[in-house]
Amino acid sequence: MANKLRLGIPKGSLQDATIALFERAGWRIYANGRSYFPSIDDSEIECMLIRAQEMARYVNHGVLDAGLTGIDWVVESGLDVTSVASLVYAKQSRQRVRWVLAVPEDSPWQRAEDLAGQTIATELVEVTKRYFAEKNVPVKVEFSWGATEVKPPMLADAIVEVTETGSSLKANRLRIIDTVMFSETHLIANATAYANDWKKQKLDSLAMMLKGAIAAQGQVGLMLNVAKANLPTVLSVLPALNSPTISELSNPEWVAVNTILEESVVREVIPKLKAADATGIVEYPLNKVVL
Amino acid sequence: MANKLRLGIPKGSLQDATIALFERAGWRIYANGRSYFPSIDDSEIECMLIRAQEMARYVNHGVLDAGLTGIDWVVESGLDVTSVASLVYAKQSRQRVRWVLAVPEDSPWQRAEDLAGQTIATELVEVTKRYFAEKNVPVKVEFSWGATEVKPPMLADAIVEVTETGSSLKANRLRIIDTVMFSETHLIANATAYANDWKKQKLDSLAMMLKGAIAAQGQVGLMLNVAKANLPTVLSVLPALNSPTISELSNPEWVAVNTILEESVVREVIPKLKAADATGIVEYPLNKVVL
Amino acid sequence: MANKLRLGIPKGSLQDATIALFERAGWRIYANGRSYFPSIDDSEIECMLIRAQEMARYVNHGVLDAGLTGIDWVVESGLDVTSVASLVYAKQSRQRVRWVLAVPEDSPWQRAEDLAGQTIATELVEVTKRYFAEKNVPVKVEFSWGATEVKPPMLADAIVEVTETGSSLKANRLRIIDTVMFSETHLIANATAYANDWKKQKLDSLAMMLKGAIAAQGQVGLMLNVAKANLPTVLSVLPALNSPTISELSNPEWVAVNTILEESVVREVIPKLKAADATGIVEYPLNKVVL
Amino acid sequence: MANKLRLGIPKGSLQDATIALFERAGWRIYANGRSYFPSIDDSEIECMLIRAQEMARYVNHGVLDAGLTGIDWVVESGLDVTSVASLVYAKQSRQRVRWVLAVPEDSPWQRAEDLAGQTIATELVEVTKRYFAEKNVPVKVEFSWGATEVKPPMLADAIVEVTETGSSLKANRLRIIDTVMFSETHLIANATAYANDWKKQKLDSLAMMLKGAIAAQGQVGLMLNVAKANLPTVLSVLPALNSPTISELSNPEWVAVNTILEESVVREVIPKLKAADATGIVEYPLNKVVL
Amino acid sequence: MANKLRLGIPKGSLQDATIALFERAGWRIYANGRSYFPSIDDSEIECMLIRAQEMARYVNHGVLDAGLTGIDWVVESGLDVTSVASLVYAKQSRQRVRWVLAVPEDSPWQRAEDLAGQTIATELVEVTKRYFAEKNVPVKVEFSWGATEVKPPMLADAIVEVTETGSSLKANRLRIIDTVMFSETHLIANATAYANDWKKQKLDSLAMMLKGAIAAQGQVGLMLNVAKANLPTVLSVLPALNSPTISELSNPEWVAVNTILEESVVREVIPKLKAADATGIVEYPLNKVVL
Amino acid sequence: MANKLRLGIPKGSLQDATIALFERAGWRIYANGRSYFPSIDDSEIECMLIRAQEMARYVNHGVLDAGLTGIDWVVESGLDVTSVASLVYAKQSRQRVRWVLAVPEDSPWQRAEDLAGQTIATELVEVTKRYFAEKNVPVKVEFSWGATEVKPPMLADAIVEVTETGSSLKANRLRIIDTVMFSETHLIANATAYANDWKKQKLDSLAMMLKGAIAAQGQVGLMLNVAKANLPTVLSVLPALNSPTISELSNPEWVAVNTILEESVVREVIPKLKAADATGIVEYPLNKVVL
Repeated sequence: MANKLRLGIPKGSLQDATIALFERAGWRIYANGRSYFPSIDDSEIECMLIRAQEMARYVNHGVLDAGLTGIDWVVESGLDVTSVASLVYAKQSRQRVRWVLAVPEDSPWQRAEDLAGQTIATELVEVTKRYFAEKNVPVKVEFSWGATEVKPPMLADAIVEVTETGSSLKANRLRIIDTVMFSETHLIANATAYANDWKKQKLDSLAMMLKGAIAAQGQVGLMLNVAKANLPTVLSVLPALNSPTISELSNPEWVAVNTILEESVVREVIPKLKAADATGIVEYPLNKVVL
Repeated sequence: MANKLRLGIPKGSLQDATIALFERAGWRIYANGRSYFPSIDDSEIECMLIRAQEMARYVNHGVLDAGLTGIDWVVESGLDVTSVASLVYAKQSRQRVRWVLAVPEDSPWQRAEDLAGQTIATELVEVTKRYFAEKNVPVKVEFSWGATEVKPPMLADAIVEVTETGSSLKANRLRIIDTVMFSETHLIANATAYANDWKKQKLDSLAMMLKGAIAAQGQVGLMLNVAKANLPTVLSVLPALNSPTISELSNPEWVAVNTILEESVVREVIPKLKAADATGIVEYPLNKVVL
Repeated sequence: MANKLRLGIPKGSLQDATIALFERAGWRIYANGRSYFPSIDDSEIECMLIRAQEMARYVNHGVLDAGLTGIDWVVESGLDVTSVASLVYAKQSRQRVRWVLAVPEDSPWQRAEDLAGQTIATELVEVTKRYFAEKNVPVKVEFSWGATEVKPPMLADAIVEVTETGSSLKANRLRIIDTVMFSETHLIANATAYANDWKKQKLDSLAMMLKGAIAAQGQVGLMLNVAKANLPTVLSVLPALNSPTISELSNPEWVAVNTILEESVVREVIPKLKAADATGIVEYPLNKVVL
Repeated sequence: MANKLRLGIPKGSLQDATIALFERAGWRIYANGRSYFPSIDDSEIECMLIRAQEMARYVNHGVLDAGLTGIDWVVESGLDVTSVASLVYAKQSRQRVRWVLAVPEDSPWQRAEDLAGQTIATELVEVTKRYFAEKNVPVKVEFSWGATEVKPPMLADAIVEVTETGSSLKANRLRIIDTVMFSETHLIANATAYANDWKKQKLDSLAMMLKGAIAAQGQVGLMLNVAKANLPTVLSVLPALNSPTISELSNPEWVAVNTILEESVVREVIPKLKAADATGIVEYPLNKVVL
Repeated sequence: MANKLRLGIPKGSLQDATIALFERAGWRIYANGRSYFPSIDDSEIECMLIRAQEMARYVNHGVLDAGLTGIDWVVESGLDVTSVASLVYAKQSRQRVRWVLAVPEDSPWQRAEDLAGQTIATELVEVTKRYFAEKNVPVKVEFSWGATEVKPPMLADAIVEVTETGSSLKANRLRIIDTVMFSETHLIANATAYANDWKKQKLDSLAMMLKGAIAAQGQVGLMLNVAKANLPTVLSVLPALNSPTISELSNPEWVAVNTILEESVVREVIPKLKAADATGIVEYPLNKVVL
Repeated sequence: MANKLRLGIPKGSLQDATIALFERAGWRIYANGRSYFPSIDDSEIECMLIRAQEMARYVNHGVLDAGLTGIDWVVESGLDVTSVASLVYAKQSRQRVRWVLAVPEDSPWQRAEDLAGQTIATELVEVTKRYFAEKNVPVKVEFSWGATEVKPPMLADAIVEVTETGSSLKANRLRIIDTVMFSETHLIANATAYANDWKKQKLDSLAMMLKGAIAAQGQVGLMLNVAKANLPTVLSVLPALNSPTISELSNPEWVAVNTILEESVVREVIPKLKAADATGIVEYPLNKVVL
């Protein structure tokens, strides 16, 4: 099929966040409760829901041209795919996750090397085996079907588990002793598909829009008016991230400033702008930001 | 009552969408669960919930000055009312609906003319009778209380039924063989009421704001900066729909462009703008658009 | 603790509205279902959920540096605290509430003075006692644990009760005969804490952002283009509240106007702007407004 | 089809109550959200969901062998069907409903005869026309698509509407001036189908079980022990409805009594039984009662 | 009003459990969301929803004839009322609750006497004052509007709080050092009302049925057959609580045994009955038990 | 720990059904949303939530004494455990499930032997490998992380998947060509633990009660009175499953019959009993049946 992109959407915990991200980026995906072939309002794309763990397998085989999945599962699969873009978004926060090595709070173990001869439960068996092999620490790695964090000390000695904030580990009285790998979502592609001009351009546009939607998530627009005399002070208060748009007003003594800010700094910036005699300070929401 | 507009709001499937539309247009309607006289934050309007099928009757009688209802039910009623505005909005999509003549998938019938002597089930009895009468095809038209699409072949031979996408008909193994009429929501008025200056102005303002809110639904604002040298390329990429606002910046080599776009084309336009060296591309949401 | 602000968040009916207000102002509060110590994404603030009725007590004692609560409960407590800002927001509307003296619809009582010797039920016992004492009217004031408005005539003769719209009183066939006090939420502070420079600046910034978020609630941005010849008419249509930003366009005959409006007047302003030959009228939403 | 019963289940307000009744009677109906052909765990029955208003039409035509619907809609249709059983059950209560003639509370009308020349809104057009025709009262009967009780006085002068308790009419300030007809659900059958032995027996068994389940709804079982000397007093306390089962105990001085009671009288009967020296009084729930 | 009982139903946390208990006892109470005067299917009773804390006040005043409330709030009120019945039921479990004196886990305090000079937060102010006064321990008792268990150590030194299982206290790191009082729900009556013959009989019947419904909650019926030779073993296995009903069977070698058991012991009793060669062992649910 | 049974409860799709079954059997399990160690009202049992797939591993290791899981996962594990009882219950129905080999509806494959060289996706990898190995059919078995039934034909050629009714397979246009294994839930035990007297007795009692609760699910009690003359006819109508209890009545001409029936046959039996002149036929619900 010439102008058709087969795209895997991660089924499960990332599914809703992914569909919401696509909507903000400009594509509406209709995931009917039961079907694994959600429709999308772009006749050039065909979607399929695939578990994140299996995405690399089917992209590598070429059954899919591309897909979104965690880089952890790509590495776990040991298969070769092309990363088109790294996209940091998640269920709750907008941060990377990490797979950590954790042991019971009150155990004596302080380093991976202390675990020789112990049983490690994890969903990420291959990565974990490689991690210990590189350190020459002999351990028994057991596949865990879930709820890994409740297994020590009864069902396992230590675990390798994914975490965003560490709070679930702490609640289960586990202590992190090392980071095995960081991970975030990637848009991955089959190498042959990505060599095709049409597919490459389609994927690059898609990546640009997804990134634009992610960027807009934590950012807002800020408009204000300021007397030209006070402009330097106002500009010194604004983060240097990207240059604000300064436009002329009918009143030649004043200018209008329009800029993009991280939402998280607004609460500190506005009081300073007010102190610098800016007026008509207005914050407005954004849909997409492509700087 | 001199300066008071009696307005019918369609009870039932369109009710929530109508109240949401009014809110975006600037009027808040409070529909208490049980009452048929919802309050509205405009002392010049009195609302009443009326079934879409009965709206034309009561507007024609003059009990109501105006109301929102489908043009299909207006035509079905055979009564005379004035259309103030056509408003395309609906439960799900933003498209007109149509009443179609449908027969069982595996029936031999291909045209309305093939149905002579058959039984047609429909909620739109009068329109259907007229449709067949104009073609001189004698059929038996039976009023259907609902679930019309499941009636063939057991309870009826063919049906005339409303559809947005045809998917419910297909799911019931029916084949569309003709369109009987298109329909969309209209703001209709009693002719005498609309001849009153105050009521006419009130209805025209209402119509303008409702249209402005509908227009904003599928549109977004787009701002960007561009070097004057690249402005022609950027403008050639933007849809010709309405002319963008180009304003001067402090830096005389650059201009700011601010425009309104169909949300559905943004995903194609932004990559082209980026390719044309536009910078600081920002998409923001809109509440109303009156061009 | 030097740079740490202990802040009381009102537990109960105002809790969700308060957390939503903080989010719009730039602070995210995570109220875990059970904990009374919600986390906040600002390492300089420590939150605690406290009943509005007890807030003044703990701010006065200095256990909390500051808190949000109704001025009614502050007055009821009889304790001394500093008001940093008055913030009018509430569960439903954006209006002040009032405590009223109400009697059965068909009772003979017309003024407070008529109630001598009667029993008054209220949650605001001290304020009510002072109110009657100032009028030299001897009554029996009984503390009511809630549902005060259903008590007359069986369980009390009259009540002093809080109301936004009076509809609950009317539904219980009560008649308002006086207003005992008006109330709205305040950000209050311990006097000693507010004398500390760092805490004062922190509280003032917080107040500015909370007010900016409240202001943005009922306001919207409006952009339009207009020929310079028509600018005076356009400006005469816009409310004088704050001066619009007028900027130069590439086409020197035209200007762009950008302004902030009360959302509730937009439906009247836009038809007039259109009549004044404004074009490209666009309304957009706001997050914060600090004029 | 020889041994297959085509049965119509009323779609809409009675649907859930009907399916629940069948389950208590011993048949499980699986109504998939969208399908109008619910499955049933009896290979001799085929179900179809049909609006109560259309049931008589399709049973009369013979498309269905039988169906459940209100006797009101049977009479309204004017068609001939056989009533197999009258089944009093409903959404809320276990009483018959009635169609009443109601006028505005403060209108002068006291009898049907007073309404000559007025407009009557109703969903039951034919029955209403016949009612007034029999009284020789000329009125205009208008079909109402619902919410009939809010129409007077603005949209109609009087109404004929169904009611269980009259509370909705009272809430709309209407006054009942006559009962037009009583109604309850019937199991109706096509006359030809009911003449077939197999279908008759199937329908009679079905009717017996449905009635057995309805009977059990408001009834409970009661067991107690009593000394033979006190038996006459105990028996005199029990309602005479059906004779209790009295069985011998090992202790020849005592007997056990087991009986079925209306649930609503238990609260009066038990204190009297206790006073008559009954012991071990136990009430237990029932699924079906066929006396 | 001669034959009318005015009955207070506790509003709030006990409300749903109370209405459910009345339904099992034979009275249906219809608590419309907003009204404080729920209807009941007994023309001799008038209900009113009253906060448990205020029940004793209004029963003592004679405004209500009777009401259900916790004995804790009766004692707190210091008012005189008659207890008709003690009813142990609650939101979750079927146990009495207790008010305990609790201190921070890691505080030095071990007995009430250690708390001299400290601040005690509680909703039960009068009972708490009396408790410390009897011990001659001077403390400051502060009324708490709720969430008392989170107050120590910041907002109070110790608390007197109600608990069923102690788990909420433990979760807040508090340690129980004494029990201040036990409490359970009582049906209380005004002394004068209870002296009236009709009201006394009505209240006694009500109490009997409420107790019968509570008793049935944790009990079940058990039927079995057993050869007469094995009857003594079977009887020795059954708890001695109440004597089982033994009835003759057609087969004179066997008897049927029917008895009432605590549901919680069934899992231990049935294996023993089976070992004693009982057959046809059947457990069935009960609605009411009046032994 | 001498008198303590460590019991694994299956986490996931069987969890709610298992907890409900235990409640009917007489044990209440409190599964707090997050904890994997639910409490149970039996001080001799300690519960842990474990995925069904891992249950055999931990029972075999002796970390758990016993657990409930599907026999499919026991066989898949290849580990040795003791089956105490087979318990047929499930999410929806009360039937065994089966793992089937399914291929695309329109594929040419009719038997397992036709699949040589193809890829089989399944969650039950080891059982599937053994199945094909025994038939000497070389295939590639790939582990599927879920949604196996949507994989053919794109992501796999055939699948081995679990099914209750086959409807999900049919909906995905798959055709079943063989049954690989049947499965149902078993209560399994560690062999050493089951050799311990106390644990064996505890497990046997538990198994008896679980079976008693399952048996009661689809059964009901039936009581009736009949004249001795008609008793033989009545008995001939009752299923021979277990013998009814026949007891003497005060009236020596009549007997009472009490029996247990499959709920599904009641609708056929009652009409026959009625025809045999039985009276006072009453069906009542059961909690447990141990015959």
